[in-house]
Amino acid sequence: MSTQNARQLSAGMVGGGIGADIGKTHRFGMRLDDRYSLDAGVFGRDREQSAGVAASLGVAPGRAYDTYQQMAEAEAAREDGIDVAIVATPNDSHFEGAKAFLERGINVVCEKPLTQDSATSRALVDLAAANDAILAVPHCYSAYPMVREAARMVSDGRLGRLTFIDVEHASGWAAAPLELTGHKQASWRTDPDVAGFPSVVGDLGTHGYHLSRYITGLEAERVSAQLHTFVPGRKVFDNATVALEYSDEVPGRLWASMAATGHNHGLRIRVFGDEGSLEWQHEDPHHLTYQDLEGTTTTYTHGLASLSEDSARLTRVGLGHPEGFLEAFGNFYRDLADELEARRDARPSTVRELSFPTGIDGLIGVQFVEAVAASHAADGAWIVPASVVDRDAEVAAADAELREAGGS
Amino acid sequence: MSTQNARQLSAGMVGGGIGADIGKTHRFGMRLDDRYSLDAGVFGRDREQSAGVAASLGVAPGRAYDTYQQMAEAEAAREDGIDVAIVATPNDSHFEGAKAFLERGINVVCEKPLTQDSATSRALVDLAAANDAILAVPHCYSAYPMVREAARMVSDGRLGRLTFIDVEHASGWAAAPLELTGHKQASWRTDPDVAGFPSVVGDLGTHGYHLSRYITGLEAERVSAQLHTFVPGRKVFDNATVALEYSDEVPGRLWASMAATGHNHGLRIRVFGDEGSLEWQHEDPHHLTYQDLEGTTTTYTHGLASLSEDSARLTRVGLGHPEGFLEAFGNFYRDLADELEARRDARPSTVRELSFPTGIDGLIGVQFVEAVAASHAADGAWIVPASVVDRDAEVAAADAELREAGGS
Amino acid sequence: MSTQNARQLSAGMVGGGIGADIGKTHRFGMRLDDRYSLDAGVFGRDREQSAGVAASLGVAPGRAYDTYQQMAEAEAAREDGIDVAIVATPNDSHFEGAKAFLERGINVVCEKPLTQDSATSRALVDLAAANDAILAVPHCYSAYPMVREAARMVSDGRLGRLTFIDVEHASGWAAAPLELTGHKQASWRTDPDVAGFPSVVGDLGTHGYHLSRYITGLEAERVSAQLHTFVPGRKVFDNATVALEYSDEVPGRLWASMAATGHNHGLRIRVFGDEGSLEWQHEDPHHLTYQDLEGTTTTYTHGLASLSEDSARLTRVGLGHPEGFLEAFGNFYRDLADELEARRDARPSTVRELSFPTGIDGLIGVQFVEAVAASHAADGAWIVPASVVDRDAEVAAADAELREAGGS
Amino acid sequence: MSTQNARQLSAGMVGGGIGADIGKTHRFGMRLDDRYSLDAGVFGRDREQSAGVAASLGVAPGRAYDTYQQMAEAEAAREDGIDVAIVATPNDSHFEGAKAFLERGINVVCEKPLTQDSATSRALVDLAAANDAILAVPHCYSAYPMVREAARMVSDGRLGRLTFIDVEHASGWAAAPLELTGHKQASWRTDPDVAGFPSVVGDLGTHGYHLSRYITGLEAERVSAQLHTFVPGRKVFDNATVALEYSDEVPGRLWASMAATGHNHGLRIRVFGDEGSLEWQHEDPHHLTYQDLEGTTTTYTHGLASLSEDSARLTRVGLGHPEGFLEAFGNFYRDLADELEARRDARPSTVRELSFPTGIDGLIGVQFVEAVAASHAADGAWIVPASVVDRDAEVAAADAELREAGGS
Repeated sequence: MSTQNARQLSAGMVGGGIGADIGKTHRFGMRLDDRYSLDAGVFGRDREQSAGVAASLGVAPGRAYDTYQQMAEAEAAREDGIDVAIVATPNDSHFEGAKAFLERGINVVCEKPLTQDSATSRALVDLAAANDAILAVPHCYSAYPMVREAARMVSDGRLGRLTFIDVEHASGWAAAPLELTGHKQASWRTDPDVAGFPSVVGDLGTHGYHLSRYITGLEAERVSAQLHTFVPGRKVFDNATVALEYSDEVPGRLWASMAATGHNHGLRIRVFGDEGSLEWQHEDPHHLTYQDLEGTTTTYTHGLASLSEDSARLTRVGLGHPEGFLEAFGNFYRDLADELEARRDARPSTVRELSFPTGIDGLIGVQFVEAVAASHAADGAWIVPASVVDRDAEVAAADAELREAGGS
Repeated sequence: MSTQNARQLSAGMVGGGIGADIGKTHRFGMRLDDRYSLDAGVFGRDREQSAGVAASLGVAPGRAYDTYQQMAEAEAAREDGIDVAIVATPNDSHFEGAKAFLERGINVVCEKPLTQDSATSRALVDLAAANDAILAVPHCYSAYPMVREAARMVSDGRLGRLTFIDVEHASGWAAAPLELTGHKQASWRTDPDVAGFPSVVGDLGTHGYHLSRYITGLEAERVSAQLHTFVPGRKVFDNATVALEYSDEVPGRLWASMAATGHNHGLRIRVFGDEGSLEWQHEDPHHLTYQDLEGTTTTYTHGLASLSEDSARLTRVGLGHPEGFLEAFGNFYRDLADELEARRDARPSTVRELSFPTGIDGLIGVQFVEAVAASHAADGAWIVPASVVDRDAEVAAADAELREAGGS
Repeated sequence: MSTQNARQLSAGMVGGGIGADIGKTHRFGMRLDDRYSLDAGVFGRDREQSAGVAASLGVAPGRAYDTYQQMAEAEAAREDGIDVAIVATPNDSHFEGAKAFLERGINVVCEKPLTQDSATSRALVDLAAANDAILAVPHCYSAYPMVREAARMVSDGRLGRLTFIDVEHASGWAAAPLELTGHKQASWRTDPDVAGFPSVVGDLGTHGYHLSRYITGLEAERVSAQLHTFVPGRKVFDNATVALEYSDEVPGRLWASMAATGHNHGLRIRVFGDEGSLEWQHEDPHHLTYQDLEGTTTTYTHGLASLSEDSARLTRVGLGHPEGFLEAFGNFYRDLADELEARRDARPSTVRELSFPTGIDGLIGVQFVEAVAASHAADGAWIVPASVVDRDAEVAAADAELREAGGS
Repeated sequence: MSTQNARQLSAGMVGGGIGADIGKTHRFGMRLDDRYSLDAGVFGRDREQSAGVAASLGVAPGRAYDTYQQMAEAEAAREDGIDVAIVATPNDSHFEGAKAFLERGINVVCEKPLTQDSATSRALVDLAAANDAILAVPHCYSAYPMVREAARMVSDGRLGRLTFIDVEHASGWAAAPLELTGHKQASWRTDPDVAGFPSVVGDLGTHGYHLSRYITGLEAERVSAQLHTFVPGRKVFDNATVALEYSDEVPGRLWASMAATGHNHGLRIRVFGDEGSLEWQHEDPHHLTYQDLEGTTTTYTHGLASLSEDSARLTRVGLGHPEGFLEAFGNFYRDLADELEARRDARPSTVRELSFPTGIDGLIGVQFVEAVAASHAADGAWIVPASVVDRDAEVAAADAELREAGGS
C-alpha cells in the first residue's frame, strides 16, 4: 500500500523473480507494517522477466537492474539510494551478492545458508562490521511471538536447569524426485554446486539449529552426524540426524529432512529442564505448551494478557486469531526497520536481547553445516564446530595477551 | 510498501483510529498484495488524534478529514478521488457512513452488522445498485482457502445430501465485565444504543451464520432462539443459542457468545451429509477435516496439490506454512481489487461463484439478527427471517405477473 | 479369572448373547476387579444359543435358564442365588426383566433407557425401594476418572457460577440405513416398538443428559426440542437437538445423533462458569481440559498426583497409560460391588457423593425423553419434564402439609 | 470373575505384590477374557504380605509359596499344576525365576528386560526350547490393535520402500529424584545392581526398540549411542539417544528417557517410506495416522470396518470407544492363551505372523541394551549388536557346512 511517507525505508531486492516463493514471502513481510518502499531490484537472471516483475512491483524502470553489481554501484551513487538490499537468490550467489552491497555500506538481508562455506561467511560478517552495515539473516521462525515467549520462559528459569533439547525440521516436500520433473526449487536444492552436498542441512537444518540456539541461548560444542539420501539417484543428502552436545553439557538431537514423506512442514522443538519442559511447532505457531514436573500441560496462545512483552509486541491480531509465516517475516522486518531507522536518524540502537538474527548467526549456521558434513565423512565421529574452536582460540588469545600484559 | 504503480486502487478509511483493532486489520489486509493506496481518511472522532493517525499512515494532510460527510464530498469531487471507502466504525454509524459514499458512486467496504436494522441495510443495498457501486461486507472467514475448499466440497457433492449444520462463534473475550474497566471494544459492544440489544448476534452470530450460508449455499427458513446475559448487569445479550431450519429441510444449530469463558476465539463449523461430513475451525484455519461414512478422517492442509483452484489461488505460502486472519483479509481485498479494477478498466466482472460477501449478505445477516431477537421475545417461537418473506413475496409477485401476462 | 474367593458376589445376566456387544462390555467390566462370579443367565431368546453362551462362560447348565422369569424364581429360591441380575436386553423387555428380580429382592443393573415410559420406570424405582434392592443404571461415562474430576471441579467452585452447558452425543454409527442389511443393533434400535420413536434420545441422549447432570448437579427445568430423521425411510427419529434451561437459570444445549456421518462416538461435554470452563470428550477420556478467564488452557491427565481422590481411586494404571470404556464399566461395577458387599455384610453404605447412577437417574432420563418428544410434537414448545413437575408437586404437598400442621 | 470352566488355563505369579503396579496390570489383562485362573503365587519377599495378597486374590493357602523355587517344584509335581508362570519381579531375579519354571517344562511369561545380560537371556531361550515350553515377553504395546494395523500397513507395502524409523519412549516419571523419597519403583530402577547402569534403556528403550522391530520387521545392524544422567546424583543413566542403522540400510533414531520432564508416558513411533508414512502414539492408542506422498493425513480408528483382521480381532468395543493399556495386556494374554490351549489340547500352533513377543525378542532386547552401553562407553562409536553377530556367524557356519558338504 503506497504512502507518501517520507520516512519509509527504501529497499532493493536481488532474486525473488518468477517462481521464487521466498522473494514473495519477503515482500509480503515487508508490506505488513508499511515501513519499506521497494524501489530497486534484479528479479532473476532473465533480463526481460526481471523487468516485467519490476514493473508489476512498481519499481521504476531506471532502477530495475540487470545485475546486482550494477545495482549496488548505482544505488550507492544515488542520494536517495536504497537503505537495504535483500539477497534472496539460490545459495551460490549469496556471497557475491551480499558483498557487493556491504562493501558499499548498504545494509543487507541475506537468505540462509549465508554462504557456501564459513570462510566467505566470516568475510561477510567482517565486511559488514568494517562498513558499519547491518547484515541480517532471516531465520524468521525466531520472530514468532510464541518462540519469543519460549525464549523468555527459558531465560526466566521456568524450565529450571536445562537437560535436553530436541529439534527437528523434517519436511516431506522433496520425498519424491521432483528434480526430475523440472521443479525449480527442487532442481537447485538438489544441485550440489548450488546447494552443497549437505543441502538439507543448510536449507532446513540451519533453521532448526538456530531455533534451538535462540530459545535456549546455548550452542553446540560438538556434533556427531549421519547424512542420508532417501531418494535414489539424488545428488545431495536429503536427510540428516545429528547428536549434539550443547554448552553447559546439555545433550540434544537435531533431525533435518526434505524427504520425510507426508510431513507438511515439520519444524518443531522441545526443550526440557529439571522443572519443566516446553514445545513449539511451526504448524500450530500461535500456541506454546508447557509441562510441569508433575505432568500437567498448560497451553498458551499468542495474545494472552499474561504473556511477556517480548511476544506481546509482535502480535497484530486479537486473542485467538491465528497469525502465520508472513507475520513472522513481518516481525523480522519490523525489528529490522526499528534498527535501520535508528541508525538513519542517529538514534540509539533498538537491538534488544531477543532480536533479529544477524551475520553471526548465519556464520554459526554455516559452521554447523560444515561440522555435520565432517562428522558424516568420519562415520559419525564427534566434531567441534569452528564457532567453538574460534571462540576458544579467542579466549586463549585474550588470556595470553592478558598474561603477557600482566607480566605473569 | 510504497510503489509508483499508477494502477493501484485508491482507498479511504472511516474509523480505524487509535485502539480500533479492526481498522488495523483492514490495513494489514490491504497491504499484503500492494494493490491499494490509502490516500484519505477520518480516523476517529477526535480531530487531533485522527490527524496524527493520518500522518503516521502517510495520508496527505489535505485528505485527512474531520467527518465522513466532508470526506465523501471532497473525494467525489477530486479527479483522483478514492475508489473505495472502508467504513470501520462502531455499528451505529455504519448506515450514514456507507450512505455518504454510495450515494456519490464511491464503492464501500462496510463492517458487519451492516446497519442497525434491516430497513437501513436494504436502503444501502438499493443505493449501491442505483449508483452502480460495490458494497462489500468483510465476513472474511469466508476468504480462508480451506473455507473455500469446504464450500467446494459441498457443491461437488462429497458430502452427499446435506443433513445437518452446526456452527458456533463462541468467544470468551467478554466473559468478565470489561465494560466496567473502560475497555473500548467492550464499552461500545455492550451499549445497546450502539451495538443493539442482541449485540453478540450482530457481532459474532452474523459471522457464524454467514459462514454456514457460504459453505452450504443454504439459508435459514425459520429460527427459534434464546438470548442470555451471562455477565450480571450487562446491558446487552452476550450469548445466543439458535435452532435453524435451513432450506431443503436441513436442520441446524448456531451458538454465538462473547462470554464463553476461556474460549480464545471460537468460530467452528461442522456440516453433515449422507455421504460424509466436514469440520473447520478458525483457530486452526489451514486444515480442513473430512469424515466418511465409515468413520475414517482425512485432514487436508492448504497448499496441497490436489485441492481445488478456489482454495489454491488464495494461498500465499508453501505447504505447511501457516497463514492466518490477516491473509484472510488480504484475500477479501484481493478478490475485491480484481473486481474494482475490472470495473475501473471496463473489463468483464471477475465475480465468481465463491467470492467476497456483499451488501446482500450484510442485509441477510441483519435480518437474521432481527429474526433471532423476535424469536427470543416470543419465548423461542419459530420466526421466518424477512429474507425468506421477501424472497417468497418476490416469487409470488413474479408468479402473479406471469399469470396476468399469460392471461391464465 | 477364576478364584475360590468365597466373598465374590454372584451375578446373573439377562441378554448379552451372540451379537450383543453391551452384554460383553458388562462382562469385561465385571471381570476387571474379580469381584463377581457369573453364575446364572439367559443369554438370548434362542434356547440352544443361550445354552452355548452359558457354557462358554462357565455357567453351570442348571443355572442357564430359558426365561428371566424362571431365572428370577429359581435364583430367589437358592440359598446361593445371585446377588445381582444384569438386564442387558433391548429396551422393550427392561421393565419386565428388572421387575422379575426386584420384586424378589434381587439387586438389578438395568440398561438405559430404564423402560419405555416413565410410569414403568417409576414403578421399578418404587419396587426397588419396597424390596430394599439396589437398582443401578449403567450410565458408565460417569465412572471415568476425569468425569469424576470434572464433577469435583464444578462442586469445588473452580468454574465459579455456572453459565452454560453444552453436551452432545452425536455418533455416526447409523448414518447409513443399516437396518436394511440385517444389522442386529440397527434393526431393534430403529424399530419403534422396541426402541420407541425418539430412539436416539433414549439411546444416546440419556447418556448426554445424565453426564451433564452428573458433572453439574443441575437438572433441566424445561426443554424445547426438534427431532429429525436423517436416513430416509427410517421408522424412528435418528437425530435430536434440544435447548434446555437447567436449574439456577443455566441455559444449555444437547445434541443426540446416530446419524452424524463420520463421527466415531461423539460424546462430549463443555461446561462454562464465570471463572472458568471445562471440556471432556469420550474419545480422549483420560484428559480433562480447563480454560481460565484469561484464555489459558490446562490439560490434566488421569493419574496426576494432584487430582482429587474421586478420580484417583478409579485409575488402575500409571500416569500416561490410557484407560477406556471397559475400565469405566469396571469402575461402575467396583463402586457397585462396594455397596453390594456392604449390604451383604451389613456394613454401612459406601455410597458417596459421586457414585453409580441408580433407578432415579434412569427415571429422570426417561422423563427427559418424554419431555423432548412432547416438545417436538408441539413444534418445539417448552415442556417441563415430569421430574420437575413431580418435585414441585412434592414441595407443594410438603408445604401444604406444613401449613396445615401449623394451622397458618 | 470366577467360572467353573474346566478348560481355563491355570496360572501362577512371581512378584506383583503390594506396590507392584506391573503385577496388577498382568492380572487385569489376564482377567479380561476369563481364560486364566490364578491358582498359585509368591507375591513378594515378605512372607506375610505375600500370603495376604494371595488370600485377597483367592489363591488357596497351600499354593501361596515362600519362594519361586518351592513354587516351581510343587507345581511341577501337581497333576493340576499351573500351565504358566508369570515372572514380574525386578530385573535381577528374572533369570533365576524364569529358569526354575522353564527347566520343569512350565511355560513362562517373563517381564522385560528378559535378564541382566545376553548370556543368561540366551540360556533362557535355549532352556525353553529344550523343554518345549513357551517363553513369552510382554512387550504389550505390540498387542494394540492399531500397532498391529501399522505392522500390516508396512508389510502390505502402503509405505513403499522404508526410509526412516523414529521411535521414542521418553517419559517424565522420574525427572525428580524420587529414589530419595523411598518411591519403590524409583528405588530399584535406579539401583545399578538391580536395573543395570543403562537402566532406562532396559526399561523403556527395549519397548521402543521392540515396537520398531515389530512394525517394520527390521533389526538394528549397528548403533551409536549416548547415555546421560539428568538427575544429579542418580546412580544409573536416565536418558539415552541412539542412532541406528536397521537392516536394508534404513536409518533410524531411538530416544529413551525416564527424565523427560512433563511427559506423561511418551511412547511414540513414526515410520517413513517412499510412498507414505505412519505415526502411532501410546497416549492416543486407538488412532493410527497415515500421511501420503502429497501430504494428506488419514486417521484410522480401531474398529473401523475396513481395517485388517489383525487389528479387528483385538478390539473388544464398538467404534469410537477407547481401549487402553489393560486391553493391550489382555490381547497379549489372549494370543498366549490360544497357543497354550493349542499345546495343551495337542492342536496345531496358533502362532501367526503378528503374534506375542517371545524369548527371542527378549534376548534381542538385551543385546540391544548391551550394544547401546558399549557404544556409549566408546564415546558413541558404532557397535554391532550381538544378535547380528550371531546371525552372521550362523549364516557363515551354514555356508561353510554347505561348501564342505558340496566339496566345492
